[in-house]
Amino acid sequence: MLFCDIGNSNANFLEDHKYFTLSIEQFLEFKSEQKIFYINVNENLKNYLKSQKNFIDLEPFFVFDTIYQGLGIDRIAACYTIDDGVIVDAGSAITIDIIANSIHLGGFILPGITNFRKIYAHISPRLKCEFNTQVSFDAFPQKTKDALSYGVFKSIYLLIKDTAQNKKLYFTGGDGQFLANYFDNAIYDKLLVFRGMKKIIQENPNLLI
Amino acid sequence: MLFCDIGNSNANFLEDHKYFTLSIEQFLEFKSEQKIFYINVNENLKNYLKSQKNFIDLEPFFVFDTIYQGLGIDRIAACYTIDDGVIVDAGSAITIDIIANSIHLGGFILPGITNFRKIYAHISPRLKCEFNTQVSFDAFPQKTKDALSYGVFKSIYLLIKDTAQNKKLYFTGGDGQFLANYFDNAIYDKLLVFRGMKKIIQENPNLLI
Repeated sequence: MLFCDIGNSNANFLEDHKYFTLSIEQFLEFKSEQKIFYINVNENLKNYLKSQKNFIDLEPFFVFDTIYQGLGIDRIAACYTIDDGVIVDAGSAITIDIIANSIHLGGFILPGITNFRKIYAHISPRLKCEFNTQVSFDAFPQKTKDALSYGVFKSIYLLIKDTAQNKKLYFTGGDGQFLANYFDNAIYDKLLVFRGMKKIIQENPNLLI
Repeated sequence: MLFCDIGNSNANFLEDHKYFTLSIEQFLEFKSEQKIFYINVNENLKNYLKSQKNFIDLEPFFVFDTIYQGLGIDRIAACYTIDDGVIVDAGSAITIDIIANSIHLGGFILPGITNFRKIYAHISPRLKCEFNTQVSFDAFPQKTKDALSYGVFKSIYLLIKDTAQNKKLYFTGGDGQFLANYFDNAIYDKLLVFRGMKKIIQENPNLLI
């Protein structure tokens, strides 16, 4: 079975246990005879996807309790896998969603780590540098590289900690593993969004016919 | 007396009690017969400023105790005004510096609020919107505008709060007043950097001759 989660910069595929990523340009060249069960948040691709006969949009099948207006289907899919906890999807943006008793309590958004780097470089050439992923949170930084890294990583850390309180944390996305390391009792699950999509197939087995 | 604090996007002037801002383009057109006491962090303007006879660089006169490598002279000037506390300069970047017993303990950097908006718009057209400056920190957001605002403002707030502990907070810069409102016992001083420059003149009265 072939699943596809389409974002703004990439399309992630899962075929059985094989995971691969295509850029949007590569994705537009991708051809398959198989049914492709997909979700998509990329506005530019909506019409293209409708025109592809073997692409099946799973979005209409998600029944999800929230009052959040315009919650992205990738966030819904990830939330669909848990009854209680906080989900952090750390990609080009970092989305944080809070679930209690299978109800979505709300969520918020930060820039992704790579995009923090881009914005620093845009502000000043003096702020253009790699992050120090080992920067200590226990001493104030003494050089620019650490000053930028501390600002980004500690502000993300504190906001997630403040949100989680005693809830379980589920991380996914390209920087999910890195951020999960800051927390005890955090789970990193690269395939969280795909698990939500698979749950839809289980709930709607006639989609396979 | 004419003071000038030159950054990456603007040059701020103080003439007696008159404060005004020029863009870098406007600054390059600006002519005066007076002595202009300046500090500058804009690499592109270093040679230009050296060629201007009435521009006097105050940077060499700051005697400042820090082990921080490459601390910007604008940050030094602001820190020069206090013996103890935390200084937050919220402009195109937000710099946070910690002083105890007239010693600089270190500091760190976040993107400025306007630049957070730019980076969201860059990530996705769905994330392009104004911030809600009234967003509540006490309930999880239920729409994109609030989700972005909560992410930015609360992460900045938590990191400054974590830094300050019981120290006094001094805010300056274009977004300084807005951020100061989140804290009790915070001082907003638009002219903090200029106060540091004036202190140099007091310590070196022969500069006026």
